[in-house]
Formats: sequence, C-alpha cells, structure tokens
Amino acid sequence: MDATQLSQLRPLTEERRRNLLDFCSLVRMQMLDLQLLDQALTHTSYAHENHWLPRSYNNERLEFLGDSVLSTVVSTYMYQHFNLDEGRMTKLRAQVVCEQSLFQVAERIGLGRYLHLGHGELNTGGRKRPSILADAFEAVLGAYYLDKGYEAARDYVLRLLQEEIEQVCRGRVMMGDYKSMLQEMVQHGAGSPVISYDILGFEGPEHNRTFRAGVYMNRILMGMGEGRTKKEAEQAAAHEAVLKLKQTARAKH
Amino acid sequence: MDATQLSQLRPLTEERRRNLLDFCSLVRMQMLDLQLLDQALTHTSYAHENHWLPRSYNNERLEFLGDSVLSTVVSTYMYQHFNLDEGRMTKLRAQVVCEQSLFQVAERIGLGRYLHLGHGELNTGGRKRPSILADAFEAVLGAYYLDKGYEAARDYVLRLLQEEIEQVCRGRVMMGDYKSMLQEMVQHGAGSPVISYDILGFEGPEHNRTFRAGVYMNRILMGMGEGRTKKEAEQAAAHEAVLKLKQTARAKH
Repeated sequence: MDATQLSQLRPLTEERRRNLLDFCSLVRMQMLDLQLLDQALTHTSYAHENHWLPRSYNNERLEFLGDSVLSTVVSTYMYQHFNLDEGRMTKLRAQVVCEQSLFQVAERIGLGRYLHLGHGELNTGGRKRPSILADAFEAVLGAYYLDKGYEAARDYVLRLLQEEIEQVCRGRVMMGDYKSMLQEMVQHGAGSPVISYDILGFEGPEHNRTFRAGVYMNRILMGMGEGRTKKEAEQAAAHEAVLKLKQTARAKH
Repeated sequence: MDATQLSQLRPLTEERRRNLLDFCSLVRMQMLDLQLLDQALTHTSYAHENHWLPRSYNNERLEFLGDSVLSTVVSTYMYQHFNLDEGRMTKLRAQVVCEQSLFQVAERIGLGRYLHLGHGELNTGGRKRPSILADAFEAVLGAYYLDKGYEAARDYVLRLLQEEIEQVCRGRVMMGDYKSMLQEMVQHGAGSPVISYDILGFEGPEHNRTFRAGVYMNRILMGMGEGRTKKEAEQAAAHEAVLKLKQTARAKH
C-alpha cells in the first residue's frame, strides 16, 4: 500500500484495536503499527467484500515477506545448532516452513479468531483452513519484521518454533507427518499390525476438490480424514488414528 | 564446523590474511572473523585436495545461509519500494537471486581472485565458472551475516545490488537476459534485422557438457558463447553480440 491508499483507510474501530492488542499480548509481540497487523490478519476475501477497503488491503504481500524472513530464521538456527550439510538443511527446513507445520502453530496460538475473512470463507470453515492460517501466520511475521526489525522477528519465531526445529533436526519427528508417527507407534517387532490407507471418496470440481481417506490397522478402520490432496487426506486420517491410540494408551494407565 | 574441528585448523597464513583483508576493503566489509571469510571463499574441491583441512571446511553451508539472507533482503527492498503483487515479486526476485545475476556481481567485485579452488577446478577455468562464483558470493554474504548481523548484511547487499533490483522491478531489463537485451537494441521498426541462434557443438559427457552457440543478425555471425545448457550458451553468445554492438555504437560517436 502506498501513502495515498493508507490515508484513505478508515481508522481501526475501538473493538478491532482491542482485539489486535489482545493478540499481541497473547503472542508477546510489541507491535507499534496496529494498522499493519490488521492488514496481516485480513484475508483477501474480506477486502473483496468490503468495498471501502482498497483492493490491495490484504495479507498476501506481507505473507511473501514473512515467508522469506521465516526461512532465514530457521536456516540460521539450523546452521548454528546442528552440523548438517546443506542438502539435509534444505530438506529439514522445508518440513518446518510448510503449510502443515505453520497451520499447527497458528492453531496453537488461536490465530484464526483474529482473522478478517469474507462471508464465503467464513461459511466454509475458513478460520480452520490450513492454507489460510499458515499464510496469515507468515503475514503477521512479515508485519512484525517491518515494524520492529529482524532481531525481534527472529525472537518471535524461535519462541513459537524452536522446539519444533529442534525435533525436526534431531530426526525425532517430521512435522505434521502423522503417517510416519503412526507407523512408529505400532511398530513392536514381528506382531506389529499392518497399516493401510484407502481413498474413500471425493467432493467438488477438479480445481477445488476435497478427498476423504481412511486408515486401517489389520483392516480395521482406525481413522478418517479430509484434505485437498489424497496425501493430505491420508495424513489427516493418520492424525485421527494417532490421537485415538494415545487416548487408548492413556486410558490403560 | 564444531569447536573441535575449528581448534584443529591451522591459523591462516600471513599472505592469506592480507589477501582476505584486501577483499574486505575492496567490498567495504568490516569482517571480524577472517577464518569464517576464508571458509566462505573455499570451494569444496580445495578441501578435498588439502588433507589437513576438515572435509567440512568449504563454503556449501554458508552458501545455504547466504542464499536465504539474500532472498530476505531483496524481498524487503521490493516490498518497501515497489507496489507489486506477491506473484510478481516472486518472479522478479528469482531474476535477481539467480546464478547468472550473482555471477555478474561476483565478477564485478573480482571475487574469483580470492577463491581457494582445487587443481582440477583451477585448470578448467573454475575461477570464471558462474556456479562457483555465484555460490561463493552467497557464502561470503552468509559469513558476513553471521559475523556482523542482519543489518550489516543487508547494507552490503544493497550496496552491490540495489541498482539491479531497481532495474529489474522497473521492468527495464531482466538480469542476465542478453537475448532480450539484444532484441531490444536492434528493434527499430520494419527494417529491423532478424536475430537467430544456432547450437554449434558440444563437448564432454552428458553429465558435464559444455554447449557452444552462435547468434546471427540477418545470418551474419555476431557472437559466440559457451554454457552448461543450450540456453546458457545462447545467452553468452547474445552477451558477446551486445558488447560488440555497444562498441560499434561508441565508435560512431
């Protein structure tokens, strides 16, 4: 947004200001420019429906910036704390800087509640859509970086993601890879159950399809999940199975 | 490199120290850790041949880091100075952060002279190989960033690349795209000469091939060039033709 567009913006409502300050305190951000944070939390669908907003008042450019900052922070941490070659670092970084893992972080900090979405997105579960949440997480990072500089942005990222980076680099778990997690959980030698997946159906036209998958242990259905791709649906199904197995394990103790 | 490996390193020779300080003053870098700069200027082929060096004493990990820092600096500059959407920024950034353009910058600052290369690379023109120079440029940036922080690294990048970023974003020129540049130079209406390219030959086995291309204006050979791919060879040929046309233009004035 250039200066002219900025000057045409209505000031934030008192309610929105409180809402944004609430978010800042939740994630321990000292953000000076609340307007920029508001933009980072505005999905393009909202700007399309609210015609007093400039069309460019959405979080897409900030997301582009935040994505790059995030990559640099994660790369630096990996470089400084792990003796991995560059090929390995590239692969592991991609596991941290990806929709699935950023979606999890966004969920953890309850970012969805602070999003401005258009009605279409709201009515189809936009506040919980992985792509929307992951993008908004990056956009907020981009805004904070512009507002407070690189070091502040780095500290913010590490506060939220350090443990995940550590886990990924120690090879303990591939973030969001519930299929591997499930496999590990059930592997106990010769008597291990056989895990298999099946695509149970899909909905919608080709460019906007939702797949439904099931995961089976020795042919018994253990979980079901949905996703934009078959792989995502299988991961979601595996996630359900992982949660079920953990509950069962807890009940036994 | 971890602390044990670092402590096993021989100290830099006085000649190498002078050499590195020379480079620092050339590019206006206040680098404190000359050992790190030495590593950034050490190609993997050198570490392979000099067995007192740890195998990991090369610039590959620093290049990984520098690449990410470079992307962030370029993204930030584009965000702050141009009102472009994120798709356009992604494309334009890729024109700046690419082998061809970084090779040009590395050549401009004479980086090749400061490189430690193995004999094999030295004997086959390694000091002028685009991939080696572009990688070393990024590695040096990574080292400077570790040594002096993000802001210092950003200032260094902008000192060297700001004008190129401006040109790319204003759409004046695609960095390293000499084919387009040549086309523009000769386009003056109906009487414009016809530009064509031809692959004149190649050398070496499939995994390490060098192509030779020629560029013609109305079937008259205007330039020849070599490259790892046919496209690269054509660009190199176009580059020669562009230089030739500029010389001719200068001679006319």
